[in-house]
Amino acid sequence: MGTGRLEAFSDGVIAIAITLLVLEIKVPSPEADGGLAHALAEQWPSYAAYAVSFLTIGVIWINHHAMLRRLRAADHALLVLNLVLLLFVALLPWTTALLAEYLREDRGQHLAAAIYAGSFLAMSVAFYAMNRYVLFADENLLHERLPRAQRSLIDRRNFIGLIPYAVAVAAAALSSYLTLAICAAVAIFYALPSTTSDPVDADAVDRSVAS
Amino acid sequence: MGTGRLEAFSDGVIAIAITLLVLEIKVPSPEADGGLAHALAEQWPSYAAYAVSFLTIGVIWINHHAMLRRLRAADHALLVLNLVLLLFVALLPWTTALLAEYLREDRGQHLAAAIYAGSFLAMSVAFYAMNRYVLFADENLLHERLPRAQRSLIDRRNFIGLIPYAVAVAAAALSSYLTLAICAAVAIFYALPSTTSDPVDADAVDRSVAS
Amino acid sequence: MGTGRLEAFSDGVIAIAITLLVLEIKVPSPEADGGLAHALAEQWPSYAAYAVSFLTIGVIWINHHAMLRRLRAADHALLVLNLVLLLFVALLPWTTALLAEYLREDRGQHLAAAIYAGSFLAMSVAFYAMNRYVLFADENLLHERLPRAQRSLIDRRNFIGLIPYAVAVAAAALSSYLTLAICAAVAIFYALPSTTSDPVDADAVDRSVAS
Amino acid sequence: MGTGRLEAFSDGVIAIAITLLVLEIKVPSPEADGGLAHALAEQWPSYAAYAVSFLTIGVIWINHHAMLRRLRAADHALLVLNLVLLLFVALLPWTTALLAEYLREDRGQHLAAAIYAGSFLAMSVAFYAMNRYVLFADENLLHERLPRAQRSLIDRRNFIGLIPYAVAVAAAALSSYLTLAICAAVAIFYALPSTTSDPVDADAVDRSVAS
Repeated sequence: MGTGRLEAFSDGVIAIAITLLVLEIKVPSPEADGGLAHALAEQWPSYAAYAVSFLTIGVIWINHHAMLRRLRAADHALLVLNLVLLLFVALLPWTTALLAEYLREDRGQHLAAAIYAGSFLAMSVAFYAMNRYVLFADENLLHERLPRAQRSLIDRRNFIGLIPYAVAVAAAALSSYLTLAICAAVAIFYALPSTTSDPVDADAVDRSVAS
Repeated sequence: MGTGRLEAFSDGVIAIAITLLVLEIKVPSPEADGGLAHALAEQWPSYAAYAVSFLTIGVIWINHHAMLRRLRAADHALLVLNLVLLLFVALLPWTTALLAEYLREDRGQHLAAAIYAGSFLAMSVAFYAMNRYVLFADENLLHERLPRAQRSLIDRRNFIGLIPYAVAVAAAALSSYLTLAICAAVAIFYALPSTTSDPVDADAVDRSVAS
Repeated sequence: MGTGRLEAFSDGVIAIAITLLVLEIKVPSPEADGGLAHALAEQWPSYAAYAVSFLTIGVIWINHHAMLRRLRAADHALLVLNLVLLLFVALLPWTTALLAEYLREDRGQHLAAAIYAGSFLAMSVAFYAMNRYVLFADENLLHERLPRAQRSLIDRRNFIGLIPYAVAVAAAALSSYLTLAICAAVAIFYALPSTTSDPVDADAVDRSVAS
Repeated sequence: MGTGRLEAFSDGVIAIAITLLVLEIKVPSPEADGGLAHALAEQWPSYAAYAVSFLTIGVIWINHHAMLRRLRAADHALLVLNLVLLLFVALLPWTTALLAEYLREDRGQHLAAAIYAGSFLAMSVAFYAMNRYVLFADENLLHERLPRAQRSLIDRRNFIGLIPYAVAVAAAALSSYLTLAICAAVAIFYALPSTTSDPVDADAVDRSVAS
């Protein structure tokens, strides 16, 4: 099948997952002690986790788009790989809420942080596997035959992108704050100009006009 | 009407239902006894039910796409049949939460499992009815006149696809675990290569490029 | 602006509202007395309200599509009228949950039923106002110049469609069950073949192929 | 990349955020004292906040569309600016629920109102920054070269649009009701005919037909 409806469905799931993140930020009860300002300040992990997860999902969306732009058609295996990717994206509202709830707890903060970074790692591994399939499985799925050297370069960049999340999982043994900081740094790094996973972006403007 | 907006609306409902599944996975309270690891391990039925329902809805989406690809236009009856299908798809976050809550309960596990598999069966029957309508009701709705033998083959395959879910409903009398295992097996079977319900997929790549 | 993004946004809001309906169906607590079967039977108003609201929103989506198909462009007033319509559509998950909660209560059932039917009435009035604008405000917005007699016919049919909901609101004074039954009857009536609000549907298949 | 998928993703997030607003309107418990009518009347801030936020997000959507209509392609910086805008849009269901909960509380109403208007201000600043980028960063991104004077005019209008929200934040020190009233007035002002932020709308109908 063409990639149009694959894009539409993926956009839908990613857009919903990113918007459901807000449900983990609670409205403090008016009956709570200490007043609203205090209660809102207490739940700063919710805001931090919201912002980091929002940017991370947003970056995945940008990269997902760059990946699909190379495709001219999708086969069954690609649809299933995409489903697995979306399964982990859709899980992020839960892992985000988990981290927000446990970031400052004495008990459970390490495990919650490991699961949080682990869900980013699982999403990135699923993305990496899907991208490998796009690049190497069947040249007929691609719009243009990319030279093998360039495909290997893209593949290697994606693989390197897994490392920070593996480090963030390991860092959870030390501190949940450290894990969150690493995840935030990764999200900001990819949001900066010229750091998308796609080295062939240079001519993107021209091609998008032609399409 | 054309099928574009029918696809867009269906994609929207399916994407939302699949993403709402995550709301049934709870964040354990920090005040609970036994620690986070214990609490998370206790709720493994939630993860299993999430994964099985996610894959099942994903497969329905793939098949829905294969079905609509044959259509050149939609009439009122088709829109209503599609609505009934979506009504059951949108119900799955509830039946999934129900199974996750009762899978390990002594009381209620059989009924919850029967309702879970029953909601998959109802969704599949609605899909079967809609596909029958597409294949046999009005040839003007199809892009290309499929030979009657081929349409009967597609129809028969879809009918056979109902049987595992009927078995899963019956198996709920024995054990909710058995029901979940059957539903998982069905989802994995359809996610494997070359098992979509559509025997005319061979030329799909070419057609999708042409369209 | 063109109608493409107006359709996409409206489809999104309608698809989300229809899928959020499921959140009002609760998972009974395993600790409740009487067992799961009893608890599920007790909440039958939730299933009835879900089905009626799902079909009603689905029918509005079909009619919305028929309305926009006549448009070749949208102006600011139309966008705002559409926003008002969507405001009432997006409210339905709440009025549906309200009816489901109070249908069988001694106190509050009449008011809840009046609000439920009232939200359908408000949605229909917004639809009627928007359709009037499409038909009469500016001929340049239409794809084809419809004869005035035909436009008046469409307008009159839409107006008549308001009456059952006004009756359902009034019937809430007698019984919330009666209100729900009237709303169900209206949804089923519009789901039956050949009862869309659009008398020019006959040539829709041809036009949609041409478009 | 082209703007098609940017529009689709943004429409998705905006549509979901606007529809999630309804989750802040509660169904009163049948066990509460005073009856349903009393309980529903008590929560009028929920309805007011729902309506104001719904219209405000709707107006942002209309303006977002007007902004993207000028674009022929999107670069990485634009995608990130759009993500930041969506991050604040997706936050509105929470700030809306916060205001609804605290509007009538003695303690916390000023802070809640400041956060509510502050979220509108943050959203508008993000919109303003994105629009500046569209207008001035790279002429190759635009469909047509707008004269610099016209671009400055659009930019100035957008900047002026920030002022009412800054006033609404300040007014929270006096009264949360005043803040809500200012936000309502802004939403209604933009919903009125001929007050979109886009002074080149005159020929929009023609262009949209051509596209």
